[in-house]
Amino acid sequence: MEFSAQQIASLIGGTIEGNPQAVVSSFAKIEEATQGSITFLANPKYNHYLYTTNASIVLVSRSLELEQPVSTTLIRVDDPYATLAQLLQFAQQAMAPQLQGVEQPSFVAEDVDLPADAYVGAFAYIGTGCRLGSGVKVYPQAYIGPGVTLGENTVVYPGARIYHGCRIGARCIIHAGAVIGADGFGFAPTADGSYSKIPQIGIVEIHDDVEIGANTTVDRATMGATVIEQGAKLDNLIQAGHNTVIGRNTVMAAQVGIAGSTHIGANCMVGGQVGFAGHITVGDGSKFGAQSGVPNSVAPNSRVLGSPAVPERDFARQVVYTKRLADLFARVAAIEKVINNPQ
Amino acid sequence: MEFSAQQIASLIGGTIEGNPQAVVSSFAKIEEATQGSITFLANPKYNHYLYTTNASIVLVSRSLELEQPVSTTLIRVDDPYATLAQLLQFAQQAMAPQLQGVEQPSFVAEDVDLPADAYVGAFAYIGTGCRLGSGVKVYPQAYIGPGVTLGENTVVYPGARIYHGCRIGARCIIHAGAVIGADGFGFAPTADGSYSKIPQIGIVEIHDDVEIGANTTVDRATMGATVIEQGAKLDNLIQAGHNTVIGRNTVMAAQVGIAGSTHIGANCMVGGQVGFAGHITVGDGSKFGAQSGVPNSVAPNSRVLGSPAVPERDFARQVVYTKRLADLFARVAAIEKVINNPQ
Amino acid sequence: MEFSAQQIASLIGGTIEGNPQAVVSSFAKIEEATQGSITFLANPKYNHYLYTTNASIVLVSRSLELEQPVSTTLIRVDDPYATLAQLLQFAQQAMAPQLQGVEQPSFVAEDVDLPADAYVGAFAYIGTGCRLGSGVKVYPQAYIGPGVTLGENTVVYPGARIYHGCRIGARCIIHAGAVIGADGFGFAPTADGSYSKIPQIGIVEIHDDVEIGANTTVDRATMGATVIEQGAKLDNLIQAGHNTVIGRNTVMAAQVGIAGSTHIGANCMVGGQVGFAGHITVGDGSKFGAQSGVPNSVAPNSRVLGSPAVPERDFARQVVYTKRLADLFARVAAIEKVINNPQ
Repeated sequence: MEFSAQQIASLIGGTIEGNPQAVVSSFAKIEEATQGSITFLANPKYNHYLYTTNASIVLVSRSLELEQPVSTTLIRVDDPYATLAQLLQFAQQAMAPQLQGVEQPSFVAEDVDLPADAYVGAFAYIGTGCRLGSGVKVYPQAYIGPGVTLGENTVVYPGARIYHGCRIGARCIIHAGAVIGADGFGFAPTADGSYSKIPQIGIVEIHDDVEIGANTTVDRATMGATVIEQGAKLDNLIQAGHNTVIGRNTVMAAQVGIAGSTHIGANCMVGGQVGFAGHITVGDGSKFGAQSGVPNSVAPNSRVLGSPAVPERDFARQVVYTKRLADLFARVAAIEKVINNPQ
Repeated sequence: MEFSAQQIASLIGGTIEGNPQAVVSSFAKIEEATQGSITFLANPKYNHYLYTTNASIVLVSRSLELEQPVSTTLIRVDDPYATLAQLLQFAQQAMAPQLQGVEQPSFVAEDVDLPADAYVGAFAYIGTGCRLGSGVKVYPQAYIGPGVTLGENTVVYPGARIYHGCRIGARCIIHAGAVIGADGFGFAPTADGSYSKIPQIGIVEIHDDVEIGANTTVDRATMGATVIEQGAKLDNLIQAGHNTVIGRNTVMAAQVGIAGSTHIGANCMVGGQVGFAGHITVGDGSKFGAQSGVPNSVAPNSRVLGSPAVPERDFARQVVYTKRLADLFARVAAIEKVINNPQ
Repeated sequence: MEFSAQQIASLIGGTIEGNPQAVVSSFAKIEEATQGSITFLANPKYNHYLYTTNASIVLVSRSLELEQPVSTTLIRVDDPYATLAQLLQFAQQAMAPQLQGVEQPSFVAEDVDLPADAYVGAFAYIGTGCRLGSGVKVYPQAYIGPGVTLGENTVVYPGARIYHGCRIGARCIIHAGAVIGADGFGFAPTADGSYSKIPQIGIVEIHDDVEIGANTTVDRATMGATVIEQGAKLDNLIQAGHNTVIGRNTVMAAQVGIAGSTHIGANCMVGGQVGFAGHITVGDGSKFGAQSGVPNSVAPNSRVLGSPAVPERDFARQVVYTKRLADLFARVAAIEKVINNPQ
């Protein structure tokens, strides 16, 4: 499908500079764009690409000042990145197959009421006692254990697994291979050095608008619930231990690990490969640099980095001083020489 | 189901202090407990909750001394945590569905003898030459490759995969998405810079009473076997490379990585996100703090931390001294000033 | 099957020292080998095993000088490890089941042309518009989304998932549980603190001869393609973010994480648990020690280590100096004492 600059500007409330008849049929990054594509400019680091891009249309900020003439057509908007997201959503909705109905063979327990507009892929398993909201999509080979609830318009991608009794809210996205509700890691040591399993009889509760990445694991609680609050976004290969709580609108990059019973506040941002010790509390609005190790509780709005994690500024200084250690050792040796051999 | 303090005390051999007719129908953590629930107190840090908890019954140690009167009913036992585990087991057995029989469609090779009390879920695959012990449960969508052995009462959760020829002992638990027996990572460099695959013709041997977490991967050996010894417990998202050995009753938290041919001893405790280099040996009874990086072999009963890992006490000092580096640089500069400008 | 030293030597062009009639029927590591097995010696650290091994045949280098007599039969070759790989390949081809045909039930969309020699396992899903090359093997429970291309002789192991539209080259191996083409992690913050999903409309392109480990995740691009170039080898549990590029013949150990839009060059070697920041460029031929954290772009042929990563030699010094900090603090205190209390 082709769209003209005029059609796009009117759809998104933008202002055209250039050719209103310029047409595009694809999206691209500004540095890779070819003719017939639309792109955007949001990061000032990429400003120079504006003058050389082959894109036919570029979304730019209303406030951007041009440093030289451009050959592409501009559409000025308030927030180019958000506008791009909006256009991508239109495109995706237009392109996405309208999945609906039940592919065979699949396994849906007899007592389950499937909404008329649900999709159940081949080889999907929906256990006894499950309740599915309107518009739910369960892709092929996904497993919805007995007694699970899926809120309306939630999507469970191929091969995701949700163990018995877990509750998933509305508009959630659970990616392929994610495992929700496997047993928490709890064992009691015995006299002979072996371990006795502590049964994990709690559940996982995922609130509305949560996204769970591919192959991420969220363990069920020992008792009560492991909770992912509304709007939280978890990337791939993350581990959330039993009885953890992840706050509203908190985002976590891939491979983060959260040990049991730790509570992460709302609106936090967590870099990749960060680890949190168990039984600690992280205040709202905190940010964690990639690979941080967080052994203790953290106040709201903290900015920390390193393993063990320290405030960002302290970490930067530690790195600088550590690089200068050879020099410091030499200086101390020189001082010792002076002192031990005074003239 | 409701149980009275009297029934519970007689089941577990405890002594009641309070109302023998107090009844409970659920488990809870002491700080979250509501009326009608039973909880336990094992960690002295939580002692203060005893005086405010809403739980109807609390399991406490026979030696606990009360600091003020309590309104809840106590049951005194030798080990409150172990007793709780025991009660949870009773509860779980009472509640768990008694899975048995073969759901359809599933794929069981013609030459496989299914025990009468086995469970095979829909879309499970059991290849030719497999041998399954009594009471085995293979959940929906699990894959048991050709020639695999599963010992009695072993449970394979949805979508776990066991490649051909691997041997799993009795009473093992393999969680969803775990992959046992994928190829080890072995390649020989060639003259043109590309790599030639080294076929991995060994297997994985998992002994009795082992638990493997969700999405954990245990690679098959190049030759011989990768071995997980009896009673070892692996959390989620762990990587065990080819020809590794993990000793008896060793426990590992999530996201640990063990490179090829490394032998971890018995009764070790490994924190989350720890990494072990290849071809090293770790002595029995060693403990590794979270995020440690272990480049070399380690003596029995070591306590190490950091990357590269050092003895725990050295690590604590390094952290302290590193935090004080700014101060040290300033002190050295001050000394230099004195020396260079003597009065 | 049994083979004599004579048969093997003639197959691989080696020279026998010892008994040409020695027969073997299995492979083993030199330190574990029993009679009737063949092994190899490539690492000088293992030389001493040559004099005590029970192996019936050992592949050794033509240049190896014996320090004492050996009781085993030697076959001298140019490169013992590469020769072993070659023998393992013969063995594997002889032993591997010749999988072909379509197991039932499986789901193959009506418009898909299956090559006559393809294998499709039970419960595998092949969506509409897929194109499969000759000799492709899709194991049980694998998911090949709509519009996916699989090149000839590519193998997709049980439960691997390839989302819609991704393109996989020839002779690739995708291990169990790998997820190719799940959404990249892209969200635009909104005024109320929640996040709006950026649709991910790009794909993943995997070129020829690539191996992807078990439970590894490679995200689809926001726009354009995430690319894994020819001959790259990724171990288990790796995360490759959206719009990343991994160069030709680059190898990565398990649990590596690569944030979005980062380009890794060709012929790089990446240790386990390494993390790369987003939007950086890594030059060809670089090597990264295990657990490194790479915040910035890296020149070709770099050798780095640590978090944040520094050149290998600097890291080694930092470690040494850090271990000696207690000593340095004491020395500075001693100097201060002298200066403040001059005699």
